[in-house]
Amino acid sequence: MPNPTAAMLVIGDEILSGRTRDANMHYLAGELTKHGIDLREVRVVPDEREAIIEALRALKAVHDTVFTSGGIGPTHDDITADCVAACFGVPIDVRADARALLQAHYDSTGRELNEARLRMARIPDGATLIENPVSVAPGFSIGNVYVMAGVPSVFEAMVASILPTLSGGAPLLSQSLRIMRGEGDIAGPLAGLAREFPDLSFGSYPFQQDGVHGAQVVIRGSDGARVDAAMTRLSEIFA
Amino acid sequence: MPNPTAAMLVIGDEILSGRTRDANMHYLAGELTKHGIDLREVRVVPDEREAIIEALRALKAVHDTVFTSGGIGPTHDDITADCVAACFGVPIDVRADARALLQAHYDSTGRELNEARLRMARIPDGATLIENPVSVAPGFSIGNVYVMAGVPSVFEAMVASILPTLSGGAPLLSQSLRIMRGEGDIAGPLAGLAREFPDLSFGSYPFQQDGVHGAQVVIRGSDGARVDAAMTRLSEIFA
Repeated sequence: MPNPTAAMLVIGDEILSGRTRDANMHYLAGELTKHGIDLREVRVVPDEREAIIEALRALKAVHDTVFTSGGIGPTHDDITADCVAACFGVPIDVRADARALLQAHYDSTGRELNEARLRMARIPDGATLIENPVSVAPGFSIGNVYVMAGVPSVFEAMVASILPTLSGGAPLLSQSLRIMRGEGDIAGPLAGLAREFPDLSFGSYPFQQDGVHGAQVVIRGSDGARVDAAMTRLSEIFA
Repeated sequence: MPNPTAAMLVIGDEILSGRTRDANMHYLAGELTKHGIDLREVRVVPDEREAIIEALRALKAVHDTVFTSGGIGPTHDDITADCVAACFGVPIDVRADARALLQAHYDSTGRELNEARLRMARIPDGATLIENPVSVAPGFSIGNVYVMAGVPSVFEAMVASILPTLSGGAPLLSQSLRIMRGEGDIAGPLAGLAREFPDLSFGSYPFQQDGVHGAQVVIRGSDGARVDAAMTRLSEIFA
């Protein structure tokens, strides 16, 4: 059975303007691979309603699961929750359980749960909250969409709490071999090996070291014995 | 007149599996912003023909310019050039000028221009080569699509050679103010300011320092006097 598929939607002008270098895609990619879920596509869109809704609609129709990052804070450009609600055609408002979480948090820190902060308790009808152990304001899931914060420490904590609840397939295993030959010398035999092992994926990542060309060849697959067998063949070819 | 728009297509299993952390998106985003081109969307897809063609077709129809990164090396999974040709409905084959570049390079380094390396001279009919001062194998442009290598040093060199040939709009200017208040306290006044200056964009990026909440507020726009005016108002509000 093929692994479940996933997509990610990164939301934020700051990524597209180059102000901030996204870190969440790389983190999620690694975690999903370990969990046996294939990340098949990532899109990055600005903080704009039409762009968010259109991308989310396309991704959630095609993939088993969609993860979003960003746009759930208290400021006027945090519109992700409203867009998700629109996408699912459900109402959205401040929800009592989310409000209670925020109220307790701000009470304990002596700050005010003002109108802006209350925006973080806006949850689409029918959604399930995702715990935020870092800064309390929750994420949520609805249908096959998981909505999380953009701040990396919060994003990572939310992913950690979600992943055990998702069924994964066989984790993707990988082995790599460092070959001190130009990628152009490796490519022919590697293509032959890829034909011989159609169930595995073969990647080659070139580098230079002290002016000498080399490549890291990575063999990936979910069947460890097959990955072993291909790696043995690769080692023989380039011994 | 609004700025020209751009999209980016990042191609590579290694990004989606979490093996490699993409660096090109952040680089391109910053360069386009300086050049007055609005990066409106990024997609990341695997090394698969259908996925590449579908994403490229969607992006090139909507944006003034599309930049791709990855998949133009010598190995069997480097299929970007063929996908671009298919997308434009033009033939693709080894082209004499690209072949000559590679031949001279491999002759001078005493390596063989073998079948795998010749793949890097496959250029769609009608495309213009993009120089690769790092490792010779060229990128190319066709229509509104610019096809570049995934290796960051090569990608950056190619972007540097292309950008002066593209018309940009007004570079996006930005000013930022560090405010040692919780984002929830900043959000209300900031939303008011955003309504007052609808031609500017206002972002707020929270942080914690020694347990105290703060936010970096960034005001962006192409009219320096307006950004100045908004920043003056912001400073007054949070003085």
